[in-house]
Amino acid sequence: MLQNVKFTNDVVQALSIILGALQPSSVLVLVDDNTRLHVLPHLKQAIGDATVICIPAGEQYKSLETVTKVWNEMIAAGATRQSVMVNLGGGTVTDLGGFVASTFKRGIRFINIPTTILGAVDAGVGGKTGIDFSGFKNEIGVFRNAESVIISSCFFNTLPIEEIKSGFAEMLKHGMLNSHDEFSRLIGTDLVKNDWINSLDIIENSVKTKQSIVTADPMEQGLRRALNLGHTVGHALESLSLKRGKPVTHGHAVACGLVTEAVLSHMTLKFPSEDLHLLATFVRDHYGAINITCKDYPSLLQFMHHDKKSRSGEINCTLLRQCGDFVIDNVVSDNEMQTALDIYRDLMGI
Amino acid sequence: MLQNVKFTNDVVQALSIILGALQPSSVLVLVDDNTRLHVLPHLKQAIGDATVICIPAGEQYKSLETVTKVWNEMIAAGATRQSVMVNLGGGTVTDLGGFVASTFKRGIRFINIPTTILGAVDAGVGGKTGIDFSGFKNEIGVFRNAESVIISSCFFNTLPIEEIKSGFAEMLKHGMLNSHDEFSRLIGTDLVKNDWINSLDIIENSVKTKQSIVTADPMEQGLRRALNLGHTVGHALESLSLKRGKPVTHGHAVACGLVTEAVLSHMTLKFPSEDLHLLATFVRDHYGAINITCKDYPSLLQFMHHDKKSRSGEINCTLLRQCGDFVIDNVVSDNEMQTALDIYRDLMGI
Repeated sequence: MLQNVKFTNDVVQALSIILGALQPSSVLVLVDDNTRLHVLPHLKQAIGDATVICIPAGEQYKSLETVTKVWNEMIAAGATRQSVMVNLGGGTVTDLGGFVASTFKRGIRFINIPTTILGAVDAGVGGKTGIDFSGFKNEIGVFRNAESVIISSCFFNTLPIEEIKSGFAEMLKHGMLNSHDEFSRLIGTDLVKNDWINSLDIIENSVKTKQSIVTADPMEQGLRRALNLGHTVGHALESLSLKRGKPVTHGHAVACGLVTEAVLSHMTLKFPSEDLHLLATFVRDHYGAINITCKDYPSLLQFMHHDKKSRSGEINCTLLRQCGDFVIDNVVSDNEMQTALDIYRDLMGI
Repeated sequence: MLQNVKFTNDVVQALSIILGALQPSSVLVLVDDNTRLHVLPHLKQAIGDATVICIPAGEQYKSLETVTKVWNEMIAAGATRQSVMVNLGGGTVTDLGGFVASTFKRGIRFINIPTTILGAVDAGVGGKTGIDFSGFKNEIGVFRNAESVIISSCFFNTLPIEEIKSGFAEMLKHGMLNSHDEFSRLIGTDLVKNDWINSLDIIENSVKTKQSIVTADPMEQGLRRALNLGHTVGHALESLSLKRGKPVTHGHAVACGLVTEAVLSHMTLKFPSEDLHLLATFVRDHYGAINITCKDYPSLLQFMHHDKKSRSGEINCTLLRQCGDFVIDNVVSDNEMQTALDIYRDLMGI
């Protein structure tokens, strides 16, 4: 089922039209501390006297405790099955808000308005909702589509540069899955100077790449694993950094994961050397390396063997023949991975 | 989507065949203290070395706390997305187990084996899962069908009579929704002496009445509200009894709810007086009245206005022109409801 996604920088008008059509008995708006201050005031005209529910900002609050608090506030606000929830925020707000709405009275309708690039191109569309539980990311959740998603780039110019980079890594991934043209266009972007108001089209292309994959495989039975490109190595780098007490952003880890998996793609599927070098240069210049030595390899391999997407403990990667031509479910040996990590270090100058 | 329901008194064979077809990575069996002792041992041949997760028996444990405990036990058992959960018990086990399975890693497959009449004819089929929350019944949950449901009457002869009565109230509801013949057959049943092993056919009729309605409206957008017959008043009586610290069974509340809503049906849709009196006599003789006085009306009305099925706070009932001819979405005024409650008290001799 293709999700209803509206691309626009006139969010007030889009939201007014959508809410008008849904005719909810009441509207609940879920925000975090940041979006309550910086985004909510601009949407007053569309949401009127909706009940605003605020959660603390930060992934550490994507928890059952927060969910319980939000359910209770919904009850206190007299929400019914005909109520509509508007999730206004980054991935934490849309993931948690989608789960809360999907389980309240066995499911009420919800609208996602992602306010970060990562939220727009990744979490906000695709029907994955969830929370972290017992130390595992997204361990509890359901698949359920938002009634509508409003994608706008008007929130992005004021994002911290680290947040922009984090989201852009997922765009880079989508670009590589989509086509060589899209890949070239993205690595021509200057992340520091880019004017996002005028970049709604590249956001739209990115979301549509994700949608076309998700629509073909909503429950993650197969094809959807394409979206794991860069993430087998990326998750391992993210976990290693966390273990060292020097956490990196998800996007930074994914960017370095994309480089390493492009190396693997080159080694096993003849992914063009030229594109590999273009990618590595872009990532080195915009993100910098995540520093690893060969002493870190055993830890990294262990994380990869225990990845959620792994089946029977093998290292599983999505790889590319070239941009736009991906192959899911490649089993990678420990030796191949170590070689790829060696080359990643060379390419990144560490 | 018609749910896969198997009617049989050979549960071991049915379960073996279903599990064989699903090829799960592991099997988790959810039981309560009762079914662990009395039912689980008989199914050993079908479930082998499955992980058994036991929750305390009783609706008061249909809570988020229990859900959290079960999620943690699933993680400890190494459950994956390819695992299958078997819910073996009454409505509490199948409701809670269905919710737990539907939300674990965004949903794993589950099989329901209801061991009570109420579980068989009501909770076990139809895709409603959920838990009680913050004092409200089934406030949190999702719609999701079990992969298969095995309906057997072989567990029912050893049920306590109160439990039999509780389930029979839902059968009575289905009979009234289905036809006058079915209604007549049911009120001719002697609940104390009935041999349930030989009654799989009336269980099957009851389940099929429910299924035909649910299949036409899986998400409760309209027609499915027919199944709410007796429940607007029933839920209010149940909540009131709970509040008083003298809880009654769900079926007892529904039986009294059916009488009150048959009164309303007579008042507004000319439901035959004769059937109303037959029903009231059956309920009075087999269940007895739930005692209320006019001092309880404000509480009862408040519960009804806050019922999950209510839209914009109105009292909403499914009513009958006659058995087999129902009308959903009747808005009932406070005055009409008070009159109906007066007549309920008369009919029940309180």
